[in-house]
Amino acid sequence: MAKDVEGPEGFQTRDYEDPPPTPFFDAEELTKWSLYRAVIAEFVATLLFLYVTVLTVIGYKIQSDKTAGGVDCGGVGILGIAWAFGGMIFILVYCTAGISGGHINPAVTFGLFLARKVSLIRAVLYMVAQCLGAICGVGFVKAFQSSYYVRYGGGANSLADGYNTGTGLAAEIIGTFVLVYTVFSATDPKRNARDSHVPVLAPLPIGFAVFMVHLATIPITGTGINPARSFGAAVIFNESKPWDDHWIFWVGPFIGAAIAAFYHQFVLRASGSKSLGSFRSAANV
Amino acid sequence: MAKDVEGPEGFQTRDYEDPPPTPFFDAEELTKWSLYRAVIAEFVATLLFLYVTVLTVIGYKIQSDKTAGGVDCGGVGILGIAWAFGGMIFILVYCTAGISGGHINPAVTFGLFLARKVSLIRAVLYMVAQCLGAICGVGFVKAFQSSYYVRYGGGANSLADGYNTGTGLAAEIIGTFVLVYTVFSATDPKRNARDSHVPVLAPLPIGFAVFMVHLATIPITGTGINPARSFGAAVIFNESKPWDDHWIFWVGPFIGAAIAAFYHQFVLRASGSKSLGSFRSAANV
Amino acid sequence: MAKDVEGPEGFQTRDYEDPPPTPFFDAEELTKWSLYRAVIAEFVATLLFLYVTVLTVIGYKIQSDKTAGGVDCGGVGILGIAWAFGGMIFILVYCTAGISGGHINPAVTFGLFLARKVSLIRAVLYMVAQCLGAICGVGFVKAFQSSYYVRYGGGANSLADGYNTGTGLAAEIIGTFVLVYTVFSATDPKRNARDSHVPVLAPLPIGFAVFMVHLATIPITGTGINPARSFGAAVIFNESKPWDDHWIFWVGPFIGAAIAAFYHQFVLRASGSKSLGSFRSAANV
Amino acid sequence: MAKDVEGPEGFQTRDYEDPPPTPFFDAEELTKWSLYRAVIAEFVATLLFLYVTVLTVIGYKIQSDKTAGGVDCGGVGILGIAWAFGGMIFILVYCTAGISGGHINPAVTFGLFLARKVSLIRAVLYMVAQCLGAICGVGFVKAFQSSYYVRYGGGANSLADGYNTGTGLAAEIIGTFVLVYTVFSATDPKRNARDSHVPVLAPLPIGFAVFMVHLATIPITGTGINPARSFGAAVIFNESKPWDDHWIFWVGPFIGAAIAAFYHQFVLRASGSKSLGSFRSAANV
Repeated sequence: MAKDVEGPEGFQTRDYEDPPPTPFFDAEELTKWSLYRAVIAEFVATLLFLYVTVLTVIGYKIQSDKTAGGVDCGGVGILGIAWAFGGMIFILVYCTAGISGGHINPAVTFGLFLARKVSLIRAVLYMVAQCLGAICGVGFVKAFQSSYYVRYGGGANSLADGYNTGTGLAAEIIGTFVLVYTVFSATDPKRNARDSHVPVLAPLPIGFAVFMVHLATIPITGTGINPARSFGAAVIFNESKPWDDHWIFWVGPFIGAAIAAFYHQFVLRASGSKSLGSFRSAANV
Repeated sequence: MAKDVEGPEGFQTRDYEDPPPTPFFDAEELTKWSLYRAVIAEFVATLLFLYVTVLTVIGYKIQSDKTAGGVDCGGVGILGIAWAFGGMIFILVYCTAGISGGHINPAVTFGLFLARKVSLIRAVLYMVAQCLGAICGVGFVKAFQSSYYVRYGGGANSLADGYNTGTGLAAEIIGTFVLVYTVFSATDPKRNARDSHVPVLAPLPIGFAVFMVHLATIPITGTGINPARSFGAAVIFNESKPWDDHWIFWVGPFIGAAIAAFYHQFVLRASGSKSLGSFRSAANV
Repeated sequence: MAKDVEGPEGFQTRDYEDPPPTPFFDAEELTKWSLYRAVIAEFVATLLFLYVTVLTVIGYKIQSDKTAGGVDCGGVGILGIAWAFGGMIFILVYCTAGISGGHINPAVTFGLFLARKVSLIRAVLYMVAQCLGAICGVGFVKAFQSSYYVRYGGGANSLADGYNTGTGLAAEIIGTFVLVYTVFSATDPKRNARDSHVPVLAPLPIGFAVFMVHLATIPITGTGINPARSFGAAVIFNESKPWDDHWIFWVGPFIGAAIAAFYHQFVLRASGSKSLGSFRSAANV
Repeated sequence: MAKDVEGPEGFQTRDYEDPPPTPFFDAEELTKWSLYRAVIAEFVATLLFLYVTVLTVIGYKIQSDKTAGGVDCGGVGILGIAWAFGGMIFILVYCTAGISGGHINPAVTFGLFLARKVSLIRAVLYMVAQCLGAICGVGFVKAFQSSYYVRYGGGANSLADGYNTGTGLAAEIIGTFVLVYTVFSATDPKRNARDSHVPVLAPLPIGFAVFMVHLATIPITGTGINPARSFGAAVIFNESKPWDDHWIFWVGPFIGAAIAAFYHQFVLRASGSKSLGSFRSAANV
């Protein structure tokens, strides 16, 4: 229903301000406590994310394994696992949005870096913190579930039997596109100013995006769409199959995030694009 | 609890403005980038909608088929499938509401066209984009799941055994009514102005409406309530049973959307209706 | 965290206005279109509520009945049924709150009548419309599922084996208390004015309250907590067991709603209560 | 995305007011009706919480016990149980936030007491009311389900076979950390003032935090993270195993809440911390 308000020349009359692009490198940023606090928050959030989700995966497998005392329909089911991933992203984005922006995912950080919304130094520090947090989170699960952890696959991502590399890569690309597209939509400054019937509920649709992608791609790759999640589980599980496939869970999400950033910035927002500007002029001829 | 504020003559004292009806045909609209951007957004959103939901359906069938290595209670269940449809509509309406209005469904576009909220040209372009997007989305699923896709029914809508055409058509009519009625309620300009205890959370109840209808009618028709969804799956699956029943999934949703538009505009809002105006006068005698 | 702002005498300094009590009988109300529109909206909403929920119940039983071609874990599960009831209340309260207040339940209407928030004439008309809507909604289900409808119990409420009448009645009383207490909390005028960290999201917690009570009491009574829902199913199913137990599903919900109204008005709000006023004075001595 | 606004010295320019710390002991508070009303609200909310959740647990076990007439996949599943705990916290926090702050959990009260957000006297009265409410709530379940209640474990928390005390304690600590961290994040006064894209939806993420922790730790401890919940079930069930393990469900949650309070107040908010202030000065050298 919401339509764009356009002036007589077809250019939009803006009633909002885009923030200026974040500088590529900003030495002063390194002197501020707020940066380190944000890095700590990303570390803790990714730790909690992996801890809860991988513990849910292992617990489900224990409770539904009939060869080990489990029962049919025991545990929370694949649906419960998808909820764990989506629900944790919902609450962690909610909790950390005001501190660090609530990325909790190197692919999200990468997409926002490409869109000039975070600086290079912040992006690198976030990714390091996310990977370390993920390792620690999965480490807690292994410590708690020592015998079960290895037996039930350690929550690691790898290609399921019957799918080739191209399919797995494409599934990761599209899945991450869904997530990062939702992140861009939810945090668009235009949204607040103009679309009064669209609520400012960023964390909930972001969590749902993660939930949805898990419903669809758990049978194919176990669903990565978050390189820190795949990396943390691979480091702690440390077996050859997940390491062999591991590149898929970095390349796929980064490509998906880049496409989402391009789509949002150059198609949906069309900001600063000379070529699109000339297209618009042409359209008015 | 919210009651209407009525003046002494029983007519409402309006504290809000209805937007004027959209012109039936507006040539100038065709010169604006915002129209094409909206059409692109509808294409992409419908592609993602079909990709995630049909992939969830096929994945569930793989994981729960005991004759092919699946297990009892494997996969996300019918409940997970219903969540996939509802949850995707939630996030896609959230993401595209500010760009295109977030229809993602020809029946929604048709209902809003009848209510004079979108122009004819926009409605036609949206429907074409939605159908093309749906075909592409299901095409991705077939590409990823080549052998499984055909084996497990391709996510196509058709009447289940034991139900006649009239039942299927009625189920589609009422299901689409629930959805389009929710869309009208959620985007009513009166809502923002008057009902302070009703939040402006449009995408969430719209997504839930889709979720609910899937819970109820998956056993009967597989649940269409979205002609683009049914069309895209029929084109890619391309077998006779879905094509034979296919008209149900256009006629049903369009009738349901028309009834919802009528109910909202002429019963609940009673705007511009001479006959209802005279009824109100009569009631005051 | 939110604490009451109290003046030096211990009485609250009010920064909000309670609406005046609704008159017990208001003849002028009968001359207004808005009343009839609200009654129509309650009829339609209760029809849709029963249609979707009972269709979900019957569909689940078909898909999970192994003696009739169903499969283990087929259908949406008891969890899906609980979602259907809760989710429909969420979207229907969302849609009708601005038209009729969104009761969709005679027990809610009764509670709000006791609290002087609706007039007697409106309460009676709403209850009649809700019961008629429920009958029509279940009627659609029977028309669609003719052979299955009777076979699978018709969605009617009755006491499960092994529970006595007192338990069923108590379960209905407490369940309805949870629902009506949530309704009062969600629509409290004090809420908007004072508690800025509590969002005005009325329909969502109300829907969740219905979802929760279904999780808990489906094994005992099938969960009524809505006399129109129980009545509509009893009329269409029309067998002796549901009719024998039917009084439970009126008496229980009405008692629960009355206790919730008392608790909210005289304990939590303590409005207009002389005795509580004197208690507060005493407490300040 | 939200970044801190910092002045030239690296200290934040505050655009919000922190409320002053609550006095440790405030005799005047004892003279106010609002305190007693809040205590009553905590009692009722905890009663309803235990009633609905434990009834869901027992009902699930009845419906899925094949040795007693249940069926595979009967009942709401472990996923439904996790929803019951999370969903009840959502609606009860929503309903009582404006009356008592909506703690419903001694660990939450303890965390907020440590952060000087509630006085000692209020904290003690809340905890007593929560424990009494929990006992009454489980008592209702036992009264309704007399024979089944004992047979199916009474909803009591204890360590599952194969886990040692340290694992159970750690699981309770981290689980309660997730919950109390979310509570602090949701009720932070900074949130409203600065982060316009983060909605003020406190009860929903708090309920989801409880849901998430149940998904992860039901297989280990049954999930306490709420000493009143564990205490009420232990008192009514009254068998040796839950009593032997009972200390875990007080010590774990209290430690988790304390760590969350420390993390929020001294790391994320860094308020009133001399050492951190000097760190920030050093960082600016």
